[in-house]
Amino acid sequence: MQRVVIIGGVALGPKAACRFKRLEPESEVIILEKDRFISYGGCGIPFYLSGEVSDIKELQSTSYHVLRDENFFEQAKGVKVFTQVEAQKIDRNSKKVLAFDHKNQEEKIFPYDKLVLATGAFPRKLNLPGIDLENIYAVKSLDQALKIREKITQGVEKAVVIGAGFIGLEIAYALTDLWGIETSIVEISQQILPGFISPELAQVAQKHLQDQGVNLYLSEQVLEFKGEKSVKEVITNKRTLSADLVILATGVIPDSRLAKEAGLKTTSWGGVIVNEYLQTSDPNIYAGGDVVALKHLITQEYAHFPLGSLANRQGRVIGSNLAGYQQTFAGACGTFILKLFDLTIAGSGLSLERAKKSGFKAQSGLALQFDKAHFYPEKDLTLLELVVEEENKRVLGIQGISSNGDSLKARIDAVASLLPFYPLLKHISNLEVAYSPPYAAAMDIVNVVANVTENILENRNRGALPEEVKAFLEKSLQNKQGIVLDCRGEDNAKPWIEKYGDRWLNIPAENLRANLDKIPRDKEILLVCNTGARSYEAQLILNKAGFKQTKNVLGGMGFLLKYGLNL
Amino acid sequence: MQRVVIIGGVALGPKAACRFKRLEPESEVIILEKDRFISYGGCGIPFYLSGEVSDIKELQSTSYHVLRDENFFEQAKGVKVFTQVEAQKIDRNSKKVLAFDHKNQEEKIFPYDKLVLATGAFPRKLNLPGIDLENIYAVKSLDQALKIREKITQGVEKAVVIGAGFIGLEIAYALTDLWGIETSIVEISQQILPGFISPELAQVAQKHLQDQGVNLYLSEQVLEFKGEKSVKEVITNKRTLSADLVILATGVIPDSRLAKEAGLKTTSWGGVIVNEYLQTSDPNIYAGGDVVALKHLITQEYAHFPLGSLANRQGRVIGSNLAGYQQTFAGACGTFILKLFDLTIAGSGLSLERAKKSGFKAQSGLALQFDKAHFYPEKDLTLLELVVEEENKRVLGIQGISSNGDSLKARIDAVASLLPFYPLLKHISNLEVAYSPPYAAAMDIVNVVANVTENILENRNRGALPEEVKAFLEKSLQNKQGIVLDCRGEDNAKPWIEKYGDRWLNIPAENLRANLDKIPRDKEILLVCNTGARSYEAQLILNKAGFKQTKNVLGGMGFLLKYGLNL
Repeated sequence: MQRVVIIGGVALGPKAACRFKRLEPESEVIILEKDRFISYGGCGIPFYLSGEVSDIKELQSTSYHVLRDENFFEQAKGVKVFTQVEAQKIDRNSKKVLAFDHKNQEEKIFPYDKLVLATGAFPRKLNLPGIDLENIYAVKSLDQALKIREKITQGVEKAVVIGAGFIGLEIAYALTDLWGIETSIVEISQQILPGFISPELAQVAQKHLQDQGVNLYLSEQVLEFKGEKSVKEVITNKRTLSADLVILATGVIPDSRLAKEAGLKTTSWGGVIVNEYLQTSDPNIYAGGDVVALKHLITQEYAHFPLGSLANRQGRVIGSNLAGYQQTFAGACGTFILKLFDLTIAGSGLSLERAKKSGFKAQSGLALQFDKAHFYPEKDLTLLELVVEEENKRVLGIQGISSNGDSLKARIDAVASLLPFYPLLKHISNLEVAYSPPYAAAMDIVNVVANVTENILENRNRGALPEEVKAFLEKSLQNKQGIVLDCRGEDNAKPWIEKYGDRWLNIPAENLRANLDKIPRDKEILLVCNTGARSYEAQLILNKAGFKQTKNVLGGMGFLLKYGLNL
Repeated sequence: MQRVVIIGGVALGPKAACRFKRLEPESEVIILEKDRFISYGGCGIPFYLSGEVSDIKELQSTSYHVLRDENFFEQAKGVKVFTQVEAQKIDRNSKKVLAFDHKNQEEKIFPYDKLVLATGAFPRKLNLPGIDLENIYAVKSLDQALKIREKITQGVEKAVVIGAGFIGLEIAYALTDLWGIETSIVEISQQILPGFISPELAQVAQKHLQDQGVNLYLSEQVLEFKGEKSVKEVITNKRTLSADLVILATGVIPDSRLAKEAGLKTTSWGGVIVNEYLQTSDPNIYAGGDVVALKHLITQEYAHFPLGSLANRQGRVIGSNLAGYQQTFAGACGTFILKLFDLTIAGSGLSLERAKKSGFKAQSGLALQFDKAHFYPEKDLTLLELVVEEENKRVLGIQGISSNGDSLKARIDAVASLLPFYPLLKHISNLEVAYSPPYAAAMDIVNVVANVTENILENRNRGALPEEVKAFLEKSLQNKQGIVLDCRGEDNAKPWIEKYGDRWLNIPAENLRANLDKIPRDKEILLVCNTGARSYEAQLILNKAGFKQTKNVLGGMGFLLKYGLNL
């Protein structure tokens, strides 16, 4: 019999409470939550804003449509929940939490045997002029979500979203696609999802965003908000945007104020440091979810993973350990997935940029292929990028884009689940994923991207990415130092031959061996086909024939078109 | 510069040839194929029969619609292919293959430095009276596929498929769904996909097959075929079935005749034994694909994995090793996926039955849950079964069924890719799969099935499977030794209360603590809800209150309905 107090009632808190109570029903569990709402799916807020989730109660209900309120926790779970009770101080010596009850306007004291910190994170605050104007919201709590949706249903003409991370993009999608609001995104970085995907993948998504009517302002900084009572304009370092709704989505910061004040160890950026049992520096205090610093399983450094799924899994581990088990939560690889209009973007582990920043000598390979057997009628082109450490060929991450999200998830999750096990390139090459023509190609895209990466590392496949192609077209092709060798059939190549004349040579890869004399030996040659596979064959034939200056367009014309390169 | 001869030109042979030629273009590669057709997607045959693939040429073409014929291999790949040339003997001393050229009716000799055996497998022959009647086909080669489709387009009324393995089921689906042929399946085992999935999962698929109008005859043996010139009747040990088309799908056997005659090591069932470099007992002879015995990575025993995807990956490894690399192919876990009308069935590793047969003290857990956030509008109920070794909690296999195949593939592949790395239950519990409400639940079904299995292993969740439920309903409920405690809301429970009266007690799990006095202490109690989650909560409450005779229906009413239990 022990008394467990949990501070925070959104995701991890209730999960830990229920799991513990299932294992140790005779013990007492108390949850303190400073807000009105408890146990809701915060990740569902963008879908409530979009209207796909019609009633906010659905985010607060079980899968069998029972509202998870205080009464539910008391009756169904035997867990006592205090809402609008804000923990103010942890006294570790006397093992007590001092709290303020906002409903009854009184102080309360909660003694504990074990304490769980589930205080989550709060939105990064922008200290800019005009930030306190009306209709500027962060998307964090259900309270805010209710207000934003109320505002939307009253009518919004122009919205500005600050930040092109996951939440910002989800909100921009919700506002544009389902409410038809003219939406702009302002992002300080050069790309969306900075750090999570390569500039190349980002550009594919950026083009799609723009095709869907979203105004995207990259490398741009918000300086000020203007308006009378309500916001009317967003001033950036480059322009003025009209707005009757502004959403702040510039990331979240661990809410570790209580932890710090109690002297618990935190990282420089405020994450509460926990061991693999999710204990803080005080073994009687557990912490998990958005407030903690977890070990990044690739870099082995502390990192922030504010994600509902991880919070739930950590909640279960804490619940078990409160009951005397010794379950572990080793860390995370940062697996993610995002729906963006008709595209899905997903990944796990490190992007190439982040791998390099973390000190890895890394390289990536890129492949474009159908996700199903090429002869099967229903299929989608999928783009995958695999990041590996050069020397030992360790796989560090994978990212991808497809219009079939479930199918992309299958490829990403197959690698994501392996990442903590130190996989090598050869493991992905032979990854034994499920095959049948309606679901995969015999040599699946996830195997193919590993094979492409191997060929790149071994310098057999000398690839060109879109920006290099662009430079080639603008320079080498213009001044006739280079030609494009189009390795596809005549029909495919025709429009480009008409445009570029004799600088765009067309020899299908199958006919190349017999036509080597038609290829100039003194020029740079850019090889292209639809996906990069046929042009790779051509590159090998040219390699053998002694051509030195060849580059192969990775992902082929398919990728260049998705990228939006004006060929 | 070396001379490589490859016997077999369907999947592995061409793959190995092309990979080798890319790495070592100066060497010579020859493929000998006894049939007319080469380099085709054999796994696509059922989809050609169904009409989903309209032209058989699509199965023989590249993804860019170029026919992979002899000329293609010569021109595009620098590989010399001889069709209708049948290898008859391998002379290992003089390193020569003796072959017969059926086109020119002459013997030919092919000297080699390295040899690759890619002879595949042939359909298991049924030595039954009448087997040589017309319109009885095995589905193995394109030649046969052409004939079957010709027969179908001429008009077939009744078809009988012998064997309910992967090919048999795919064919039955093709014949019924797309041609409206009255189709029967005769299977000697008690279930479809024997050994691959549990009887419980099989019954869900069997019900679906029957709902779609397929006649399924399990535990039934074919004795004879009758007819004049063409087959008219299939005689089993239980009935006579009319048929104007019979498809034999009783499995395949490695075609290792050449290997055996050459004195290469094979298993008792004829699989050519290879090491991890895919070399046979003669290091100058490689083998792969349907002809070899691979190591099963869970049981560590030799097993047969006749699958195009594995053949392709092995082909690449052999191609690399022919060129002096030392790439490995460690074995396989038997990952599979099958489309069966509106359902997808997939799995990897061992089923519970196969685990026990292989000597593991194993147990399985079963979970039913939506594959997406429960508040997200589009979602599918997914059923997963996880098989674990009891003592050390090693994960041995996973199987599942869903109406969203891509989504099921994501769950299966995430575990499949881990299986060779000796994962434990805790790894699946915390598997970091990609989460966002349109793609997964915060606690995803793949995590949940691990948690359910843990609770079963620790005897917290004492589950009942459908057959036990059936026995309970027929016995305990009839003689009033037991009651059902329905833990759902009143609306859900109503029809059953009307049927069973006071033997069907309804107390939602949330209200159970306050109503313990309403539950008889002297009776067996069967707990049920929609998915098994809410009734598990109820079981724990009853455990604590001292009720000893409780069982929880795993997968809940959702599973029982899919199973077809007549409640």
